[in-house]
Amino acid sequence: MPETTLAKTRAAQPEPHCSIARSLEVLGEKWTLLIVRDAGRGRNRFSEFKDNLHVSSDILADRLSTLVDAGIMERRSYRDDGARERFSYHLTESGQDLHVVLGAINAWGDKHRPSDFGPASIYRRVGSRTPVTVAFVDASGRSVAPEEVEIVRGPGSEPTAP
Amino acid sequence: MPETTLAKTRAAQPEPHCSIARSLEVLGEKWTLLIVRDAGRGRNRFSEFKDNLHVSSDILADRLSTLVDAGIMERRSYRDDGARERFSYHLTESGQDLHVVLGAINAWGDKHRPSDFGPASIYRRVGSRTPVTVAFVDASGRSVAPEEVEIVRGPGSEPTAP
Repeated sequence: MPETTLAKTRAAQPEPHCSIARSLEVLGEKWTLLIVRDAGRGRNRFSEFKDNLHVSSDILADRLSTLVDAGIMERRSYRDDGARERFSYHLTESGQDLHVVLGAINAWGDKHRPSDFGPASIYRRVGSRTPVTVAFVDASGRSVAPEEVEIVRGPGSEPTAP
Repeated sequence: MPETTLAKTRAAQPEPHCSIARSLEVLGEKWTLLIVRDAGRGRNRFSEFKDNLHVSSDILADRLSTLVDAGIMERRSYRDDGARERFSYHLTESGQDLHVVLGAINAWGDKHRPSDFGPASIYRRVGSRTPVTVAFVDASGRSVAPEEVEIVRGPGSEPTAP
């Protein structure tokens, strides 16, 4: 592999062992997660994302490509009457699984970055309409306090990792 | 407020109502969350973050300032024998509460961006050493399937929001 390519690969993935680092290669940027949020709320067309996020077309196109390449969204073509072919963007299973990540960020933001307006979004159970939040849970599905959760090295940890 | 200041404020906070958008103003960037991850695993000195993350001093200093300004980390001074005063960085309560957000990202990455090495980090319960994951939970602390969770407008939602 030419040295420049190797350098680029390293720069793009500085910690191949860590699941958090690998995830942030695609997620660690504001627009990416806001696009996923919007798609989870029924927005699917380029113009819908653009109008809601007030992001430039170049950045939006770039982030949508990143999401498609990462398998988080899929592109589908559609054609309105008399118009040229366009594309819409839909969450894959991988993208739908970010629901919990966004729920965790939302709960943290409501607590630590509250606005004067109150919560904009309420997460609740369909049917009973009772509030839900995000927490650590054990194998039986009972919540576990964060201070009771420790992180230990798994089989894929680097020799020098904590 | 001068027009330029207002424009800057708007650009920095495009969606003041949404808790996810507000959170991503500080979190939506790879290095920020990796610094929080490292601090949660006992790294606190500038040199420790720099050596582990392979990030430039300029970017690291910038991201640490962002984290301190946002109340996620606090700066403390220390002085090694014979050395000049230096600073270490520690998670505040707000930063510690990101444990769940990082746990959710870790679980998503283990499932959807697995490495050939296997999981690098195992989240488990202190004492019993049984695995934990992150999920939606109801008020009684029982997990709720993601497809049973809906998002509805709260009091702080914008009139035009979904």
